[in-house]
Amino acid sequence: MSDVLSNDLMQKMDAYWRAANYLSVGQIYLQDNPLLEQPLQLEHIKPRLLGHWGTTPGLNLLYVHLNRLITEHDLDMIYIIGPGHGGPGLVANSYLEGSYTERYPAIERNRNGLQRLFRQFSWPHGVPSHVSPETPGSIHEGGELGYSLAHAYGAAFDNPDLIVACIVGDGEAETGALATSWHSNKFLNPARDGAVLPILHLNGFKIANPTVLARISRQELTDLMRGYGYEPIVVEGDEPALVHHALAAALDRALADIQAIQAAARHQGVTARPRWPMIILRTPKGWTGPKQVDGKQVEGTWRAHQVPIADFKDPAHVQLLETWLRSYRPEELFDANGKFRDELAALAPTGHCRMSANPHANGGELLQPLSLPDFRNYAVALSAPGAAKAEATRALGTFLRDVMRDNLETKNFRLFGPDETASNRLDGVLEVTDKQWMADIEDVDIALGPDGRVMEVLSEHLCQGWLEGYLLTGRHGLFSCYEAFIHIIDSMFNQHAKWLKACDAIPWRRPIASLNYLLTSHVWRQDHNGFSHQDPGFIDHVVNKKASVVRVYLPPDANCLLSVADHCLRSRNYVNLIVAGKQPEWQWLDIDAAVRHCTAGAGIWHWASNDDGDPDVVMACAGDVPTVETLAAVMLLREYVPDIRIRVVNVVDLMVLQPSSEHPHGLDDRRFDELFTVDKPVVFAFHGYPWLIHRLTYRRRNHFNIHVRGYKEEGSTTTPFDMVVLNDLDRYRLALDAIRRIPRLAGQVESATDRYWATMQRHKLYIGEHGDDMPEIRDWRWQA
Amino acid sequence: MSDVLSNDLMQKMDAYWRAANYLSVGQIYLQDNPLLEQPLQLEHIKPRLLGHWGTTPGLNLLYVHLNRLITEHDLDMIYIIGPGHGGPGLVANSYLEGSYTERYPAIERNRNGLQRLFRQFSWPHGVPSHVSPETPGSIHEGGELGYSLAHAYGAAFDNPDLIVACIVGDGEAETGALATSWHSNKFLNPARDGAVLPILHLNGFKIANPTVLARISRQELTDLMRGYGYEPIVVEGDEPALVHHALAAALDRALADIQAIQAAARHQGVTARPRWPMIILRTPKGWTGPKQVDGKQVEGTWRAHQVPIADFKDPAHVQLLETWLRSYRPEELFDANGKFRDELAALAPTGHCRMSANPHANGGELLQPLSLPDFRNYAVALSAPGAAKAEATRALGTFLRDVMRDNLETKNFRLFGPDETASNRLDGVLEVTDKQWMADIEDVDIALGPDGRVMEVLSEHLCQGWLEGYLLTGRHGLFSCYEAFIHIIDSMFNQHAKWLKACDAIPWRRPIASLNYLLTSHVWRQDHNGFSHQDPGFIDHVVNKKASVVRVYLPPDANCLLSVADHCLRSRNYVNLIVAGKQPEWQWLDIDAAVRHCTAGAGIWHWASNDDGDPDVVMACAGDVPTVETLAAVMLLREYVPDIRIRVVNVVDLMVLQPSSEHPHGLDDRRFDELFTVDKPVVFAFHGYPWLIHRLTYRRRNHFNIHVRGYKEEGSTTTPFDMVVLNDLDRYRLALDAIRRIPRLAGQVESATDRYWATMQRHKLYIGEHGDDMPEIRDWRWQA
Repeated sequence: MSDVLSNDLMQKMDAYWRAANYLSVGQIYLQDNPLLEQPLQLEHIKPRLLGHWGTTPGLNLLYVHLNRLITEHDLDMIYIIGPGHGGPGLVANSYLEGSYTERYPAIERNRNGLQRLFRQFSWPHGVPSHVSPETPGSIHEGGELGYSLAHAYGAAFDNPDLIVACIVGDGEAETGALATSWHSNKFLNPARDGAVLPILHLNGFKIANPTVLARISRQELTDLMRGYGYEPIVVEGDEPALVHHALAAALDRALADIQAIQAAARHQGVTARPRWPMIILRTPKGWTGPKQVDGKQVEGTWRAHQVPIADFKDPAHVQLLETWLRSYRPEELFDANGKFRDELAALAPTGHCRMSANPHANGGELLQPLSLPDFRNYAVALSAPGAAKAEATRALGTFLRDVMRDNLETKNFRLFGPDETASNRLDGVLEVTDKQWMADIEDVDIALGPDGRVMEVLSEHLCQGWLEGYLLTGRHGLFSCYEAFIHIIDSMFNQHAKWLKACDAIPWRRPIASLNYLLTSHVWRQDHNGFSHQDPGFIDHVVNKKASVVRVYLPPDANCLLSVADHCLRSRNYVNLIVAGKQPEWQWLDIDAAVRHCTAGAGIWHWASNDDGDPDVVMACAGDVPTVETLAAVMLLREYVPDIRIRVVNVVDLMVLQPSSEHPHGLDDRRFDELFTVDKPVVFAFHGYPWLIHRLTYRRRNHFNIHVRGYKEEGSTTTPFDMVVLNDLDRYRLALDAIRRIPRLAGQVESATDRYWATMQRHKLYIGEHGDDMPEIRDWRWQA
Repeated sequence: MSDVLSNDLMQKMDAYWRAANYLSVGQIYLQDNPLLEQPLQLEHIKPRLLGHWGTTPGLNLLYVHLNRLITEHDLDMIYIIGPGHGGPGLVANSYLEGSYTERYPAIERNRNGLQRLFRQFSWPHGVPSHVSPETPGSIHEGGELGYSLAHAYGAAFDNPDLIVACIVGDGEAETGALATSWHSNKFLNPARDGAVLPILHLNGFKIANPTVLARISRQELTDLMRGYGYEPIVVEGDEPALVHHALAAALDRALADIQAIQAAARHQGVTARPRWPMIILRTPKGWTGPKQVDGKQVEGTWRAHQVPIADFKDPAHVQLLETWLRSYRPEELFDANGKFRDELAALAPTGHCRMSANPHANGGELLQPLSLPDFRNYAVALSAPGAAKAEATRALGTFLRDVMRDNLETKNFRLFGPDETASNRLDGVLEVTDKQWMADIEDVDIALGPDGRVMEVLSEHLCQGWLEGYLLTGRHGLFSCYEAFIHIIDSMFNQHAKWLKACDAIPWRRPIASLNYLLTSHVWRQDHNGFSHQDPGFIDHVVNKKASVVRVYLPPDANCLLSVADHCLRSRNYVNLIVAGKQPEWQWLDIDAAVRHCTAGAGIWHWASNDDGDPDVVMACAGDVPTVETLAAVMLLREYVPDIRIRVVNVVDLMVLQPSSEHPHGLDDRRFDELFTVDKPVVFAFHGYPWLIHRLTYRRRNHFNIHVRGYKEEGSTTTPFDMVVLNDLDRYRLALDAIRRIPRLAGQVESATDRYWATMQRHKLYIGEHGDDMPEIRDWRWQA
């Protein structure tokens, strides 16, 4: 192996690495004496030791080597850390290159700053032990494992000059999300997108076990990587000087390969999917840490995972820690004031070239608003409520087509979905762009190509992970998914929502575009798909997160969906959940009425009401199917019980139901009472699990009178109308619910019940005999 | 290629395949004229066409070929169908071999039965279009994709004579769960476990897109499979006779390889991990279906995914369908009465050798109860409530160790977890068994080996999928996981809970052991892990599922945890969720009191109460940390407000809070009111999100007086006590909540508030200055 590093450079890089390691160990252990100017004493050591050492030296090694690559080649690079518990290493490197002090001025580049840096780590109200939103340069929370590589690809899309170095831990490599993320290279176009350089770091151990990929043969591992479509470059060793040279050579080669691939695609017209380079780096876990503690091997074992030396009541342990810290020769690294020596600091890139200060990793700095056509132009024309049917998502698809078209040039909008864009009737967008595809293309394929902006892969994890990476680097997107299966990424949503919530308290994190979900093919319209496809619980899951970052919309028709979608695409730092069906369904509001209704979030539909301000009953609804059933129930009630006074309330923004003290969209109590009364029965037909409405309204004055119908885990392969019958959400049941709850109609309940059952029997027969069974109301005769 | 099939056998197998295909097409299309005894007319065709043809012919082909293997080699084999939308094929094969009629006698083996078979498919209250619990021989719901291979391995564990043929769809192969499931071969011991034969079926398309694995080179694909540790055998073609021969040869070779591997491990002492065979089968999507419809290519494209011919108002389409159906030559397959011809039926195995009647696929038939030691023997000794501290999960670990030991011989119990068994302090089990590991082992490894029964891999998907497969084939297990990250398998839980609920209505499905979760390292004790590790929402997710299949337990101490765990391990057909901390924590109940308390589900803790049946306030709690804080609040209140009358109610079985009409464990109203009163303030300290308590109790008479504290998405890397402070669940806040709600104490609120803040300030300092901050109550002085 020829040495790609001069001896001087290698020595300096090694010193830089030692500095990062020293700062990492210092963060884990020290509360005082940061430069070891005195012999180490028990009182210098934190009383409670928390942190993860094991992965950190490898991350630090890679950092200094990537810095060399950046400075030598003037690269635009960010760094994504899969083994996120190596938090101290990232903080250390940000500190060494100055960006940490820029973001957090109290952490000065001197002795005092060092002490504060050490002390704040894993300290109450300090910084977490894993990479987090507080870490400069990070777009990837290091808590839950498995999403690094998907985030990396999301960041690289449409950033042709960016290289995303992505460290994949061999622990996280066992997760499902990561295992499929390698295939992202079939969706990255070297002519248009940036590059991802995956670096699989085999340190061999998890908390208490070896890792799978570290315990298969090198042949199997390189076969695996080749099978995933990469060309692996293997670096392994435990002798720093040798590893420095080998790693430098590997990175040079990887960069050359990336540049050759990009040049071929960009200048020589090569369109075939390239074999991208990736690096396999095998180094000991807890490398440069104590070899043994109390006679047990630590370096190179799982014992190095967290805090390798503990129990400092044993003076020998204090001595061992001091020896370990001094092995980095801090006096060579920091000057007498505790400032990192200039000749070493000079190794780092400067300004925005520092990975910890790259604006791509604080995407809000780069965010450009979308160019949005006027959504009103895509409205479904409507002469009166109930005068037409339309497919809500198809109307949205036309709007999205033009959103796509109007932002093709700026290349900052993509649509994500697991093979469902057409099924969910958003295929209008395919008129202006393809589905992205770098694998082989055959004659039968349609709308598939290397420049597509619709990202379809049968992995909700990849859709979510790519979109998160895309948003966090300052772009826009929308994820459409079957409602039931969005639970696959419940946990990823959690982590993103927590990221956004944490950013609320970090002033330098600039707002990013919201993460927008469109859930369709929803619980009420599964048709040939049965019970396994019915689950509206993602709404509940979302509502559990902090009110400041979550919004839930249930547009009752196409025009409301358009209004809501436009709003969501303009919003920042939220997760917006939209649930809307794709089937032909009755339309209620013209576009102006829809805008007013969506702006208010909820309102009385006067055209369907006849309460004159004093209802016998409030018929409330949220969701498209519940709205149809509620209005059909109102029609029935008017026919059967002509003197009944009914108020219809539709809720499109679910969060209005919460008290204003709980959610910024919450109606104040006066306004809520104006809609729902303070003492009249409310029959509430809800898209999701009924108890959510109780949860949101339990502090409201009239809560005791609210009677909710919704999905209660009944259903099978059956017709749409049977679905609402099975879950007691059908028009007959709602009408009966209303009659039952109006005291002056008590005597009519029995006859109404009889009629209900008689009608139901007819419909049961109908369900049995016919394919499509929805009892149609062909003329919605709304009285003045 | 030499022909492994005689021409006669090949012809018969082809006829059998045609029969299965005919029945599949019939199910999708026909409501009458099942034998095509008349020319096909519009009225014979269902009015609403739903189903998935594309994957079905491939599944049918594999079925008849596996049948040959079973009969020729007397195999014990089950069949797991990843591309689960091929439901009609599985129903067809079960019908052909008689098991369908045994399970559903109305579906006779004659013309009438055929008509009913066709008609019920994708028909209201009929059978779903995907493989489901109603399908004989299935342990794998075909709705959500990605779990087939994990289920297959779970089924194979501890079933040495079983071969699980697992058809992996190239669509589902893109999912995260499936992508990591291939690595399951590092956890399967050929000496002790059965075999899994993965068959990757490349039919090339999803709903609207090609699949990734069908559009990479054969070299990449075989590299990938070799990298995963398999030896791929490739079969491809679109000429039936050639494919029959090639597939038969491939299956012979795969079986020979499996048998050689097993013989080597079982009789020749070979311990190295073998390279298991797998098959890659590439055939056209919708093979044998219409080549073209309306001038567009259908066979071999995504257009064959669902219903290849639709719109039968066009008479040419009726003709096309008839031609398609007749291409299978039904008159050669069924006799004049519609009975499958004997000489073809004779190809199938008989009795329990039929894959559709194999008892492993109806695991309850094989279920043996666990041998359980008396959990009372593992109790934490306690002289009085609060007299000792203990780690609850460590006590459980000792019990589980002996559960493991006592069932080593029957080999029907395993523990599953993502690298956390030791971290969660269940490592007692490692005294009697290893962690299962077939990859390389090094000197530093401990408790790792090929005969282990603790399944650790850093993939919650694999833990869950393996356990599901293990339970569904009649065994027992427990999955322990960090609370926050169990959301990774939210969707898998959904599917399993739905499976169990569906089985309630299928008498021939015998009860199986419950799926038991132990969530620990919970939201309140994350210490160095920060906000990303804090999420108690899995409880909410579970409670959304049908009451008949879900149970949630929050044992307040070690002895209650033991009692609950024993109960869960004996239960059947439930999902039991247990949440319990691993940290040293105060203990409250001796084992007899714990049993009584857990049996009741909730109760007044008289030793902590002084209400004499007439409380000023009810202090309720559920969860270990909330219980400590509640009791500490009670101590404070007694000191600060001596004449207050307090009742302490602890809830261990969360479902008791629901009305008895909603959940079988629900307390009746009288009993609920006895605990919580009908008019006194209730301060409820809850482990999870507070609104869940409102949701569960909103129908209770005293609901309006229930004031709940719980997790509200506040937290960071901080101390345990600070966590409860940040979320208003600390003892001071709870005490203040109580005082504020007692009318006669209204005057004391102000001084109490002052004291609260003064105390908190002291504690804030304490939090800032010290590592471990829990304000200890060293003497829980309970008055009589």
